[in-house]
Amino acid sequence: MSDVYAERRARLLERCVAGGSDAALVTGGANVRYLAGRVPAGSALLVGPGHDLLLCVADPFDAGGDGRPAGDLRIFVLPSVEGDPAVAAAERAEAAGARAVAVEEHHLTVLRHRALRSVAPGLRLDDLGPAVEQQRLVKDDEEISCLRIAAEIADQALGELLESILVGRTERHLALELERRLVDHGATGAAFATSVGTGPDSGLMGHVPCDRRVEEGDFLTVCLGADYRGYHSEVARTFVIGTSPSEWQIELYEQVFAAQRAGREALVPGTPYREVDRAVRRVLDAAGHAERLGPWVGHGVGLENGEDPRLAPSAMGKLDACVPVTVDPGVHLPGRGGVRIDDTLVVRPEADGGPELLTITTKELLAL
Amino acid sequence: MSDVYAERRARLLERCVAGGSDAALVTGGANVRYLAGRVPAGSALLVGPGHDLLLCVADPFDAGGDGRPAGDLRIFVLPSVEGDPAVAAAERAEAAGARAVAVEEHHLTVLRHRALRSVAPGLRLDDLGPAVEQQRLVKDDEEISCLRIAAEIADQALGELLESILVGRTERHLALELERRLVDHGATGAAFATSVGTGPDSGLMGHVPCDRRVEEGDFLTVCLGADYRGYHSEVARTFVIGTSPSEWQIELYEQVFAAQRAGREALVPGTPYREVDRAVRRVLDAAGHAERLGPWVGHGVGLENGEDPRLAPSAMGKLDACVPVTVDPGVHLPGRGGVRIDDTLVVRPEADGGPELLTITTKELLAL
Repeated sequence: MSDVYAERRARLLERCVAGGSDAALVTGGANVRYLAGRVPAGSALLVGPGHDLLLCVADPFDAGGDGRPAGDLRIFVLPSVEGDPAVAAAERAEAAGARAVAVEEHHLTVLRHRALRSVAPGLRLDDLGPAVEQQRLVKDDEEISCLRIAAEIADQALGELLESILVGRTERHLALELERRLVDHGATGAAFATSVGTGPDSGLMGHVPCDRRVEEGDFLTVCLGADYRGYHSEVARTFVIGTSPSEWQIELYEQVFAAQRAGREALVPGTPYREVDRAVRRVLDAAGHAERLGPWVGHGVGLENGEDPRLAPSAMGKLDACVPVTVDPGVHLPGRGGVRIDDTLVVRPEADGGPELLTITTKELLAL
Repeated sequence: MSDVYAERRARLLERCVAGGSDAALVTGGANVRYLAGRVPAGSALLVGPGHDLLLCVADPFDAGGDGRPAGDLRIFVLPSVEGDPAVAAAERAEAAGARAVAVEEHHLTVLRHRALRSVAPGLRLDDLGPAVEQQRLVKDDEEISCLRIAAEIADQALGELLESILVGRTERHLALELERRLVDHGATGAAFATSVGTGPDSGLMGHVPCDRRVEEGDFLTVCLGADYRGYHSEVARTFVIGTSPSEWQIELYEQVFAAQRAGREALVPGTPYREVDRAVRRVLDAAGHAERLGPWVGHGVGLENGEDPRLAPSAMGKLDACVPVTVDPGVHLPGRGGVRIDDTLVVRPEADGGPELLTITTKELLAL
């Protein structure tokens, strides 16, 4: 793995140098992980000049990580946890002869940025912008295989839940049980707070599970994901509780399902992000639900849940092959409930069979 | 509750005005909650000029909160979730005639600060600094009663775990079970990631539970806390697994216990933070463990876990009555394990009976 990280850092440095900076100071948590492996929280990474340097407040070898930082990466553990690794990095960059360092202005607070300037007054601080986030967009095989496992784990947890008795149990307990099952199946943990919504809570995005109990006739929406080696899957399904769904439930389910399928089918390399959004939105517009759809219909997944790209009406950019995204439309009818269907897929050329579906739990409307 | 929030905001505004600003723009999550109640994540709060204004990307009445924002607080829901509530707040402050707004430079990123400047070029941006954090130090009765319930919940979860069979179970499963029990007993959730460490992992601060199984003869350290209405308790205990602890385990336990007791006894209003640290450190120094103690021996708790004050050698300030803190020393012997004992207490005058212990689980060395 160590070569992967070194190669990523070399690519970043190349871009920095082309932009007129001598080094990059990376402080965004997922960005540091992408470039240096699993390291203690709050670490800062100085890429160039000379040897790359990881600055931490705790020894990375105690972190219980899934891999040691790359061999060619030098490590500096701050003498006190009160210290700021980014400040120490700025000092070292200046001492190493750097004249300009690009920092992540979208991660650094004003206070920390000022501290950097004051310890290294001769150093020019440029803006790195979302350079690392952009580098993270297209995933390599190793990353995709982690996502594949993360998706399998979530599918297993969900599958087991469906075999158990649901009526009478609270949203909160179902969510906790799902999270326990994620860990049982090998996840590091949940990728995000598991959402379980029943009855009038069903179909809501990011609904916080409450003490509401599952009842006969309810819609039940479950949204969960596993974190496997830092990579996050996401899946949502909506079920109906009891013997047979009612008319409005079948109709709404079919509308959301058709919209979600249209979104999945639009996942072709070269397609603008906004076209995927439009494909989903068009189906729900026709069904009269235009207003009820959220601000996006999917997003990238990887080391963060909800990373670039965003499949939204105003998003700029086009899909690339090997970009994992979700397609996750939902419609909620106030007071009645709703439907959300969410998959994690990897964009693939049509010659390779089109989008690779990672979350394979059935999307039939099951009556449980 | 609404009067409490309005009164807190009035106090903050008074301080701002005294400092030369017309208004305060609060963006730190716990700070916004302290001043406006439970609101959607990412909300910004503009305190003055004129009516206070809460800016959110989602309707706060959908947030499933434990209280509506105060009646006199005006609310503005941004038309798009892509918008930045802080930027919208700066625009409105300028439109309302403010000339200078104090912002939280320790929360705002450089990028957002620049966006504020660009939408409201006529507005001077001062630094509010940790004014709200300081206001949060001393808790009122309502806050302390939430902490008391949070501590009871954690005690209950811990008590039930001790009655179950532990040998053969993994750290990870014990941690998950504790978190489930926290919710069973009425917690909103865990206050922080529950830490369970056994054998060589015992006694470590913030150890991430792994697949190691509890074995006879092990030390077992458990650190957990409940979130009750946003308020966070913290408790850690160390047990020995099996019939009788060995010599070194008894000795180490007595040393850490004596140090923790010394820290608790030092919790008197007017005592400098560093004196509490010194009281704990002195006992462990004498036992030869000076090097093994972490950088602090306790910290404030409230809406955040690990808020001000910090009970550390270089901390400035003195304890006040009604400040809840932890006293949480631990010693870890590499390769063997260690002991951590942690309580949440409220500083009280001696006339009122001295420090109020919120976490009442026994600190005897139990053999389980």
